[in-house]
Amino acid sequence: MSLRILNIPKPLLLAPMGFVSGGALAAAVSAAGGLGLLGAGYGDAAWIREQFRLAGPARAGIGFITWSLARQPQLLDVALEHKPAAVMLSFGDPRPYAEKIRRSGAKLVLQVQDVETTREALAAKPDVLVAQGTEAGGHGGQRSLFALLPAVKALAGKIPVLAAGGIVDAAGFEAARALGADGVLVGTRFIAADEALAAPQAKQRLVQAQGDATLRTTVFDIVRGYDWPAHITGRALRNRFSDSWHGKEDLLKNRLSEERSRYQIAAEKRDYDTAVLFAGEAVDRIDSVLPARAIVERICR
Amino acid sequence: MSLRILNIPKPLLLAPMGFVSGGALAAAVSAAGGLGLLGAGYGDAAWIREQFRLAGPARAGIGFITWSLARQPQLLDVALEHKPAAVMLSFGDPRPYAEKIRRSGAKLVLQVQDVETTREALAAKPDVLVAQGTEAGGHGGQRSLFALLPAVKALAGKIPVLAAGGIVDAAGFEAARALGADGVLVGTRFIAADEALAAPQAKQRLVQAQGDATLRTTVFDIVRGYDWPAHITGRALRNRFSDSWHGKEDLLKNRLSEERSRYQIAAEKRDYDTAVLFAGEAVDRIDSVLPARAIVERICR
Repeated sequence: MSLRILNIPKPLLLAPMGFVSGGALAAAVSAAGGLGLLGAGYGDAAWIREQFRLAGPARAGIGFITWSLARQPQLLDVALEHKPAAVMLSFGDPRPYAEKIRRSGAKLVLQVQDVETTREALAAKPDVLVAQGTEAGGHGGQRSLFALLPAVKALAGKIPVLAAGGIVDAAGFEAARALGADGVLVGTRFIAADEALAAPQAKQRLVQAQGDATLRTTVFDIVRGYDWPAHITGRALRNRFSDSWHGKEDLLKNRLSEERSRYQIAAEKRDYDTAVLFAGEAVDRIDSVLPARAIVERICR
Repeated sequence: MSLRILNIPKPLLLAPMGFVSGGALAAAVSAAGGLGLLGAGYGDAAWIREQFRLAGPARAGIGFITWSLARQPQLLDVALEHKPAAVMLSFGDPRPYAEKIRRSGAKLVLQVQDVETTREALAAKPDVLVAQGTEAGGHGGQRSLFALLPAVKALAGKIPVLAAGGIVDAAGFEAARALGADGVLVGTRFIAADEALAAPQAKQRLVQAQGDATLRTTVFDIVRGYDWPAHITGRALRNRFSDSWHGKEDLLKNRLSEERSRYQIAAEKRDYDTAVLFAGEAVDRIDSVLPARAIVERICR
């Protein structure tokens, strides 16, 4: 594997997970030889500034939800003031931002979910592609990494391709390499990192989760009021809320004001029987909360 | 990788694809060093006898759809008369058949789709497990191979685990090995084998299929009148029929008699704009019809 373009000793990026990938985690992943990406999520200028401050002198990048960034494009300027090593965009047309990112000196990392989004991404001339399999936690598409990665690699030419989704250990790293990946982007495993912003209760729940624990669903986006594009769903731990509403999305929409109030109270209480906990399919292979450095070393031996 | 229990030089099994994996294909895969499994599908005693005859002296096994076998259990006796090397069961409780299969001298191969079905399968004391990722063509579950395989392996103890779904070449074989597989079970790639029973038009359509070409759906089962368990869907090439009906399953059920007539005419004509062509996600990596031996050699270098 080679990721010279990002100038990192280990070909591993921290996925920019909203509310999880803050400055401390990003810095720890970079210090361990990878590259940490802050998770800008739905966007907040003060949060972005604070997390870059917390990252200190470490190299860090940042990731945006492209369709959300389109509603607050000034957030990209806030990020670029901090000279990020890389900017990653996912879920939406990257072309309006590509040139500005490249001119700033940041590398442009584009995440794709299928052949169609790969073609769109290539039109923006990325420095790095991330092939995100449906195994991944949080928002993503339908195609599985095993078949997606070679398909993206075949289109990418000389552009490095990272594998994302379901990678939590050295076996996953080696499998990604066998399929042609130039590196990996890892999310869920780092939720259970000491430095992650996730609540302690969330980390414990991840550690305890067993097989078949996740599903792809839109019910958490509906209740939270986020307007994701069709075909993009969020992979999360199954819980009482998803058991109640998955498959009954229209009913949920009809009862939204009542359910939203209940949801928000639960989320404030960190009651993960109701509140969402995004997690990838390999969550059953995560059995301890570790320092980010140890996680990097377990994956990139 | 080691598959001594099946006594084959190459750790590759032909998936028992209904209407595709006949005696000629099974024999060719076995002659190339793997093990061919006849696809008994929804069951027909005369077909089973004829395909064992066509397999000739080659070692061959057979695979059944367990819930369908439960409706015609005598088909197992028909199969066992031919001394199959292995009997594979998928989709249903294998326990009523396990003892009879083992007593016949055949190895018991059980296919699983998630942790729950793995636990059920282990209760039947299989000789070999197949972890079938959602990438696979035809009927299957929701979990992706990348995360499923290590989870199954962790439960399987000393029982060998084969990887199935999305494997069409040596890279897939190596990736499966990195994830802990003891071998692979390959389906879709062999539809485009010279010896497969699939129609020439079907083989050509597979070869021409490009990225993002497949979906998991129930619409083809609904129109054909097959009563699959909930949560088991069929991965097939998208076509005009699936574009029309996927997501509108209730409407299709309401118009079933009319749509079934149209479907059956199309299927007889091999009109794959309407008729189903089951195929896995990696279909875009299949670019030629080859002899089965060449396919085995490309996968198991």
